[in-house]
Amino acid sequence: MIEMKVGIIGGSDGLGKTLIYFLRDDFDVIISARDHKKGRKIANELGIEYIESNTQLAEMCDVVIVSVPIHFTPDVIREVAPFMRKESLMVDVTSVKEIPSQTMKESLPDDIEYLPTHPIFGPRTTELDNQVIVLTPDKKGKWFNKVYNYLDNKNMRIIETTAKKHDYMMSIVQVLTHFSFISTASAMEKLKVDIGETEDFESPIYNLMIDMIARIVAQNPYLTYYIQSMNNNGPQIRNTFAEAVNELRDVINNGNEDKFVDLAIKATKNMGDISGALGRSDKAINSLNHEHSLLNQSIGKEIGLKHIYSRKIHVGILERVDKNTAILKNGNKTKKLVVANIEVLSDSELYDWKVKNLNKKTESISCVFPIRVDKHVILDTIINLDNIIDAKITDVYQGPQIKKEDVSLTFEVTGLYKDSIENAKSLLTGFGGIIR
Amino acid sequence: MIEMKVGIIGGSDGLGKTLIYFLRDDFDVIISARDHKKGRKIANELGIEYIESNTQLAEMCDVVIVSVPIHFTPDVIREVAPFMRKESLMVDVTSVKEIPSQTMKESLPDDIEYLPTHPIFGPRTTELDNQVIVLTPDKKGKWFNKVYNYLDNKNMRIIETTAKKHDYMMSIVQVLTHFSFISTASAMEKLKVDIGETEDFESPIYNLMIDMIARIVAQNPYLTYYIQSMNNNGPQIRNTFAEAVNELRDVINNGNEDKFVDLAIKATKNMGDISGALGRSDKAINSLNHEHSLLNQSIGKEIGLKHIYSRKIHVGILERVDKNTAILKNGNKTKKLVVANIEVLSDSELYDWKVKNLNKKTESISCVFPIRVDKHVILDTIINLDNIIDAKITDVYQGPQIKKEDVSLTFEVTGLYKDSIENAKSLLTGFGGIIR
Repeated sequence: MIEMKVGIIGGSDGLGKTLIYFLRDDFDVIISARDHKKGRKIANELGIEYIESNTQLAEMCDVVIVSVPIHFTPDVIREVAPFMRKESLMVDVTSVKEIPSQTMKESLPDDIEYLPTHPIFGPRTTELDNQVIVLTPDKKGKWFNKVYNYLDNKNMRIIETTAKKHDYMMSIVQVLTHFSFISTASAMEKLKVDIGETEDFESPIYNLMIDMIARIVAQNPYLTYYIQSMNNNGPQIRNTFAEAVNELRDVINNGNEDKFVDLAIKATKNMGDISGALGRSDKAINSLNHEHSLLNQSIGKEIGLKHIYSRKIHVGILERVDKNTAILKNGNKTKKLVVANIEVLSDSELYDWKVKNLNKKTESISCVFPIRVDKHVILDTIINLDNIIDAKITDVYQGPQIKKEDVSLTFEVTGLYKDSIENAKSLLTGFGGIIR
Repeated sequence: MIEMKVGIIGGSDGLGKTLIYFLRDDFDVIISARDHKKGRKIANELGIEYIESNTQLAEMCDVVIVSVPIHFTPDVIREVAPFMRKESLMVDVTSVKEIPSQTMKESLPDDIEYLPTHPIFGPRTTELDNQVIVLTPDKKGKWFNKVYNYLDNKNMRIIETTAKKHDYMMSIVQVLTHFSFISTASAMEKLKVDIGETEDFESPIYNLMIDMIARIVAQNPYLTYYIQSMNNNGPQIRNTFAEAVNELRDVINNGNEDKFVDLAIKATKNMGDISGALGRSDKAINSLNHEHSLLNQSIGKEIGLKHIYSRKIHVGILERVDKNTAILKNGNKTKKLVVANIEVLSDSELYDWKVKNLNKKTESISCVFPIRVDKHVILDTIINLDNIIDAKITDVYQGPQIKKEDVSLTFEVTGLYKDSIENAKSLLTGFGGIIR
């Protein structure tokens, strides 16, 4: 723990809350939030401090992280700027960088450092390892290296660039793709399309497209709006997209085949590595198909299904499966699971689950062998039997109760089922051992 | 083989060529093609007949399948219609149905049946089982049931609907989604975006989006064009999409947050099963990430990599891997593989490959045990050892050469490596057997 106080404004939700988990082991963390009741609850649960006032938080901290919704960020920066401690650091974590960067530059005194950042990971992330963070410093003061080294030690992938470049990149990565997807969804709504019905005419690639459109459209619409509106390049991106759409529409509606082919070829050239794109998207589709056939092949068999979000595992006999649902039977209990949200466990994952969750049987087996046997070979062979979890040698006996050229070995064998132990006994007698 | 002659116009390429494989075992197949040299070559290779003239083909056949590019289909239908045999059947396999259906209706005499179809699978398909085919009959004559039963016996998923409904569905599944993707790619080109550079600011969902856009854009631009232009609903779809785009652009550019949220919520509601979409797309992304970490964990280890298209398998020590390339070392040979095009073999797939491809070692082992042993238990235990491929008992000896309470068992053991056989010997002696 470095003796440093880090304040998170907006610590009760989203990324701000996630940051608490990452920072509380290394620093003295304090948060503020709009909803005091919620903020206090989170702080209590996570063993950190809570304070109602953003400005009082600023007065107490060496580092202030502004993690409020994107459209409040400039106001919050301006609110706390005058209260920042001498030689302290302000960091923002918004997904646009030009506006917050400019606001910090204008509102902070010269002796206070600021670092605009964009952590490119969602609130559900639990490991910093290998995650991407973009830093867009205007100036690098004493704080910059500290932050850089800290992130580097966490094994994060650090991209250093300008706010302008960052926002341009994000205007493609987020603004353009979201805009195009939302437009498609909106057109479908205007056309009164029944998505469920179109899926019958399915090609797997179409279904994955629809899933991705649904995914983007279903985000919080305010967040979606501000991703569009807070990026300085937004108007240029949307205007260019609308231009491309109107141009292609006119070209096709007017039957101008040559012009269309010309535009398509130009666009294709610009896409770069087409064969990689085919390979990766084929693999994504194959993985979905593969799981589907795995399920179909497992009907009537024992199977383990893991919920992809809760990680909860259900084990039972797969009774039925269709496009959307899987019915699992365990004794008298029947469980209905949504196929989209489950993963099929591999044999070894299912085995591990059983070892952890089933009642294990343990038994001691004493067995007489010629003295020349290698007890480690016997022990290893028992351990390698199916459904044997563990085995150890608890006694090696030579003496009056058995012949002098023999030895009695006692194994303590733990197995998943009663039958697994019986298999171990069959192994021992099968090789000529005599069970006492 | 039913005594029936089936002609395929356009049999040298694409779906027409694929159909030969499916039909030649059941029928007497003849094809025609624009490129006679190519058509004759294909016919020779596949053991069927070739004829230069479409109209002569029609005169000879009970069933004529028109499988030419979508924009030639109406002309070819009109060309051969007058030459069709009495009571014969004409089938088309184009991805739009209204135009071919109307053309067949108008140009064929009353005593000739026609069936517009759309097989929704690509030319690379090798199994009809579980594939989707759409039938849009105007009238069902004697041929309809024959075709239906034939497809049903092949276990195909048959959708029966009208040409109008089909084309409307495909106008969403193909026309809208393609148009939106091509527009996005075209906008990227106009914006002079370097796709490679944006991928550094990657979220996995963005990369999969880009891959899917690239996939659609990279299709034959003429095919893409005709999918747009030959669908009667095309103009309505493109106009509605352009409307949605222009509306959303104006709403956002004018800062009309409430209106945007309103549109987004309406579009989201229409998308249907959002949680399924999230689950499936998360799984698609996870599968790509999973493979990436599998590769990273395998550096320095033996690994099997299968090319996803050629199915060729490369085995070796994984020397290095980055986002795009994997370097495999096998003895002195180094092989560079494109990550997008390979799949990592599972342990059991790698084992199967070795069993098929490596030089196996076989050895006979004679071993003396007490007569009470169970030779099947011993044999099974040998077979279950790692890298043992097969074992059998070739001799069971009792007699003057060994003690009378003993038996000599001879096992013929086949293993992947010399060491695997040695392990089998250690097992036998470890359990007290004496190797002769």
